[in-house]
Amino acid sequence: MPVVKVDMLAGRTQQQKNEIAEVFTRELARIAKCELADVQVVINEVGRKNWAVGGVFPDPSAYSDQR
Amino acid sequence: MPVVKVDMLAGRTQQQKNEIAEVFTRELARIAKCELADVQVVINEVGRKNWAVGGVFPDPSAYSDQR
Amino acid sequence: MPVVKVDMLAGRTQQQKNEIAEVFTRELARIAKCELADVQVVINEVGRKNWAVGGVFPDPSAYSDQR
Amino acid sequence: MPVVKVDMLAGRTQQQKNEIAEVFTRELARIAKCELADVQVVINEVGRKNWAVGGVFPDPSAYSDQR
Amino acid sequence: MPVVKVDMLAGRTQQQKNEIAEVFTRELARIAKCELADVQVVINEVGRKNWAVGGVFPDPSAYSDQR
Amino acid sequence: MPVVKVDMLAGRTQQQKNEIAEVFTRELARIAKCELADVQVVINEVGRKNWAVGGVFPDPSAYSDQR
Repeated sequence: MPVVKVDMLAGRTQQQKNEIAEVFTRELARIAKCELADVQVVINEVGRKNWAVGGVFPDPSAYSDQR
Repeated sequence: MPVVKVDMLAGRTQQQKNEIAEVFTRELARIAKCELADVQVVINEVGRKNWAVGGVFPDPSAYSDQR
Repeated sequence: MPVVKVDMLAGRTQQQKNEIAEVFTRELARIAKCELADVQVVINEVGRKNWAVGGVFPDPSAYSDQR
Repeated sequence: MPVVKVDMLAGRTQQQKNEIAEVFTRELARIAKCELADVQVVINEVGRKNWAVGGVFPDPSAYSDQR
Repeated sequence: MPVVKVDMLAGRTQQQKNEIAEVFTRELARIAKCELADVQVVINEVGRKNWAVGGVFPDPSAYSDQR
Repeated sequence: MPVVKVDMLAGRTQQQKNEIAEVFTRELARIAKCELADVQVVINEVGRKNWAVGGVFPDPSAYSDQR
């Protein structure tokens, strides 16, 4: 039943996403004592122009265009 | 005021999305006794390579590429 | 697999919450053609002092205390 | 540590998104007395065919196609 | 229509929450050119034992009890 | 920068929550090649009367009271 949502910058490979889903599911099922099949992992990839830390976007081009 | 967020796999037609929004809004307004106009429905379509159940993605091609 | 999250003000009865979950699940399974058992509905009840519309909280006491 | 998520319709310019991130970060750090660097702002742009108010999507073309 | 969700540690006063809602609403309406009444701000207060940064919870008592 | 949100039923011990945060942070930093300090884990504990699977709540008492 648990749902794990991972907000992270876009750009990881599918292999990295697979491993995140596989490890998080296995570890959560082990720690929380639930079935593997009950764990869902949703990866929400956020563009570099939509995620600011300290008010600043990691993508420098965010500051040079209008769109 | 209620906000309903539907996370589901991408791939439904616009007609299905319209019906989900229409039915959820009407039913929530009726049950929770609020105005139709106060209900918002946001559909978040998730790609098949970003949603794992039981640690496994529904899209088999997730396991054959690197990206 | 769909996950429906309903953000609404706290204060509905359990009976209303049951009906929301029951109706949303049945309708989503019908429209999106998925199994009933695959639909999850999570109700997130928000206190009246934590939800502002137009910059104003619905609970007038929010403006008379410090905490 | 605070994370601010802004769900809004797609279509704003990067300049508007920059200003939202910059203002929200500065104001939240000031009001909540935390470091600028601890504030994250994530902008989630939602398509007009995925956000219904009162059961109706703002994009009229949502009602004329099948997809 | 925009919905702003602020995840932050519990413990701010109502006055601080009011100011966050008031400032965010006014600034977002100004920048995104929408009506004040269309902006919703939801504050999600998270307990210190439920928010880890770098794998560590800010509340030291999280490490001394079992529950 | 990644933010991991875990929606799960309330009732796990603090020790389980600590381990989830610790393992998820370490594994995500390793797989996504980011700093430990950049990973945040937020655990959102949902009451049994607010989470339905297949339209049914796991807490049978949800069906016997009015509130």
